[in-house]
Amino acid sequence: MKPGLLLSMVLSLSIHAGAFNDDSLTIRSIANEVFTSGSAYRNLEYLCKHIGPRLSGSANAGKAVAWGMKAMKEAGADTVYLQPCMVMHWVHGSKESGWMVMKNGSDSKKFALQLTALGNSVGTGPQGISGPVVEVKNFDELDKLGEAGVKGKIVFLNYPMNPLFVSTFDAYEDAAKYRVRGPAKAAKYGAVGVMVRSLASNEDTHPHAGVTFYGNTSPKIPAVAISTYDANRLSSYLSQGSEVVAGFITNCVMEKDTLSYNVIGEIRGSEKPEEIITVGGHLDSWDLAEGAQDDGAGCVQSIEVLRVIKQNRLNPKRTIRAVLFMNEENGAGGAKAYYDSAVSKKEKHIFALESDAGGYTPRGFRITAGEKPFARLEKWVPLLKPYGVYYLRKTTEGDVDVSFLEKAGAVLAGLEPDSQRYFDMHHSETDVFEGVSKRELELGAINMAALVWLVSNYGLN
Amino acid sequence: MKPGLLLSMVLSLSIHAGAFNDDSLTIRSIANEVFTSGSAYRNLEYLCKHIGPRLSGSANAGKAVAWGMKAMKEAGADTVYLQPCMVMHWVHGSKESGWMVMKNGSDSKKFALQLTALGNSVGTGPQGISGPVVEVKNFDELDKLGEAGVKGKIVFLNYPMNPLFVSTFDAYEDAAKYRVRGPAKAAKYGAVGVMVRSLASNEDTHPHAGVTFYGNTSPKIPAVAISTYDANRLSSYLSQGSEVVAGFITNCVMEKDTLSYNVIGEIRGSEKPEEIITVGGHLDSWDLAEGAQDDGAGCVQSIEVLRVIKQNRLNPKRTIRAVLFMNEENGAGGAKAYYDSAVSKKEKHIFALESDAGGYTPRGFRITAGEKPFARLEKWVPLLKPYGVYYLRKTTEGDVDVSFLEKAGAVLAGLEPDSQRYFDMHHSETDVFEGVSKRELELGAINMAALVWLVSNYGLN
Repeated sequence: MKPGLLLSMVLSLSIHAGAFNDDSLTIRSIANEVFTSGSAYRNLEYLCKHIGPRLSGSANAGKAVAWGMKAMKEAGADTVYLQPCMVMHWVHGSKESGWMVMKNGSDSKKFALQLTALGNSVGTGPQGISGPVVEVKNFDELDKLGEAGVKGKIVFLNYPMNPLFVSTFDAYEDAAKYRVRGPAKAAKYGAVGVMVRSLASNEDTHPHAGVTFYGNTSPKIPAVAISTYDANRLSSYLSQGSEVVAGFITNCVMEKDTLSYNVIGEIRGSEKPEEIITVGGHLDSWDLAEGAQDDGAGCVQSIEVLRVIKQNRLNPKRTIRAVLFMNEENGAGGAKAYYDSAVSKKEKHIFALESDAGGYTPRGFRITAGEKPFARLEKWVPLLKPYGVYYLRKTTEGDVDVSFLEKAGAVLAGLEPDSQRYFDMHHSETDVFEGVSKRELELGAINMAALVWLVSNYGLN
Repeated sequence: MKPGLLLSMVLSLSIHAGAFNDDSLTIRSIANEVFTSGSAYRNLEYLCKHIGPRLSGSANAGKAVAWGMKAMKEAGADTVYLQPCMVMHWVHGSKESGWMVMKNGSDSKKFALQLTALGNSVGTGPQGISGPVVEVKNFDELDKLGEAGVKGKIVFLNYPMNPLFVSTFDAYEDAAKYRVRGPAKAAKYGAVGVMVRSLASNEDTHPHAGVTFYGNTSPKIPAVAISTYDANRLSSYLSQGSEVVAGFITNCVMEKDTLSYNVIGEIRGSEKPEEIITVGGHLDSWDLAEGAQDDGAGCVQSIEVLRVIKQNRLNPKRTIRAVLFMNEENGAGGAKAYYDSAVSKKEKHIFALESDAGGYTPRGFRITAGEKPFARLEKWVPLLKPYGVYYLRKTTEGDVDVSFLEKAGAVLAGLEPDSQRYFDMHHSETDVFEGVSKRELELGAINMAALVWLVSNYGLN
């Protein structure tokens, strides 16, 4: 080796070490600011307690949009604006209820069912529906029963989240198909209604909401989620040979698509303003929850990313946009509008990070990217480790709101907080502000801000 | 390189890969059993809800000992026995209360204080104590005030947990000296009583208990912890120039040391039964809490380690002992008795793991060991990663209950769960069963069982 080469390597190493140290100090300054003067927790309190549930198209969703603009301005964004989007407008309606009667010989009992209409489902009308209950554990069993076993009945889809998945998101993905596609499938066999076991990782007495899609070829029949406690009881009666008749009333209606908005706050890049970095969460929630972890957390963390970068005068080279997406839960209207706008304006999107897995303690990021940008991102993990992020993980599909941007060339990322508690409260009335830990929420924001700042400073080429 | 050497390397590699795969399958079998049939969560519910608080020397601590024996037997231990230990017998007493009066010009207000006597502290007697309040932020300020500034007064030690520490245990260690040694120090300057800011990472209205030690040279003056909310209010009045007088009544008494027990369950090693592995938590708790995270969690996890190893017929080569230690909170009498017994029986202790940092989601283990056993342990991290343990970390001091065993030659380990929520509830009435996540608790038990089993199978030489 030539002495010159050695010297240049040493220099290069020390330059790298120097950059690493500088970056490390920058991230420490981000953490210090968030831990001592962070706004995420009090923003979340306001969103949950003063606005509350915010189903797409609802009056509350409108209030949340107005709040989001104000919060972005307070965070110090250079520009704040609304981006119109058309959203599905499913109105849940009030006074839903359900019951079951079990009969076994001379024994007969009636119970109320804890249930909620599935998102986008049709209502029963004021008379409700009722019928004998037939339980299936999966689609194979449903297909085996066929029309002969299902027609005129209420299908009870009882597929529990599998506790053997260490990541509860894997268990959710495994089970969600029964909620998303089950009602349509049962309808084709002539079922009068569907009761789906709530997608919850625990046994509780709360129904957990979530979307279902009928598609274009199936009749639309009313569909609800029942609590895991009710599901276990119902299943137990059926397995003991009881006959069970159940009924429910739901008053939901699918209105015409309606106008709503994404809320966008921007810091313009100082050197390459045309390269855009997106960081976001979704502003809408189901209407039975405060939407604290899903996804108020992601919204206030994204606002905090802007705030701390501005407050600490980090002067990003590339443009950073915090986006509060509308309509993630039942249609992704906001995500589509953001993508359409990006295409029509020929924007250059290099990186898009979503936080939509809860405000729990951060553990890693999932990344949708080619080898080169992934390797570049992975080099930064040592900078994040002191704040709890130990890994990047390759995935083929991004979070809903940013997923479209892959086609626009963006590297996608998703914050991965610890998942163990998430599906205890997900989409249920227990997703409230009180369940959020201030420090966990802040640690998520710190790691998001660190990653966004690194990309804004160094790019991904 | 000689071909023979290459061949032996390849063979050795494939043997290692084979062992790795086998170990990986064993740990998966541990996880499957714990996730589907685990007893830790229902054991914890029983301990918290049917027994509850269990201060050393109390009737409840006795009930917990009896429960522990039963639980160890149900877990399938080969032998279960009690190990006598003498414990400090501090009786908290009932009806403690406190107040403060602030005066500023014509303005005067009286407030109740949320407080609890510090563990091991003397009581005030039925008349209580009162005096002008003087605030200090640290020992430097206390020393500067000296006798002239402190005599006849109540010293208010107001050192908050520093939010800038990412691990809240570091912040606790930084702040705990004011609770542990502050009252003794203030007493030497003639203070009539001490109010310590609760060691809590959030602002709440609950006092957080904890031990104090007077030592032999200081007068014993009554000492309490006040809630962080009260501490902030009190400090705010004082900083505005108000005069504040406060008073409190506590009825605690230090009785003579009394007899109690460690609960021990054992699986005898099949090949090297003389080599002992300890896994434990502590059974006692403060009397204002259910002691769910501190440290019911560690107890039921340790019992679960025995249960799953027995249930899955893992036939450990070395002896595994689950130990429910008594008196960790205010004296470590159980830990000392366990160590004394080990010495007197000339037992060979190779590894001792404690879980006493909560039943939150596991992130790593701290290890007190020389280079060689540390390196050996670290090679197993890839086996634990699928279950959330990403690191081992060297520390010089082990957890209280196992720390003595270092002198007996044992490698020490401590489970490190995520720390962000721990000091919100630690030592307060909010440390209840409802705050524990079933899956987080189980993941901790899985990682503990995996590590204990690996050591039991391979040793640490």
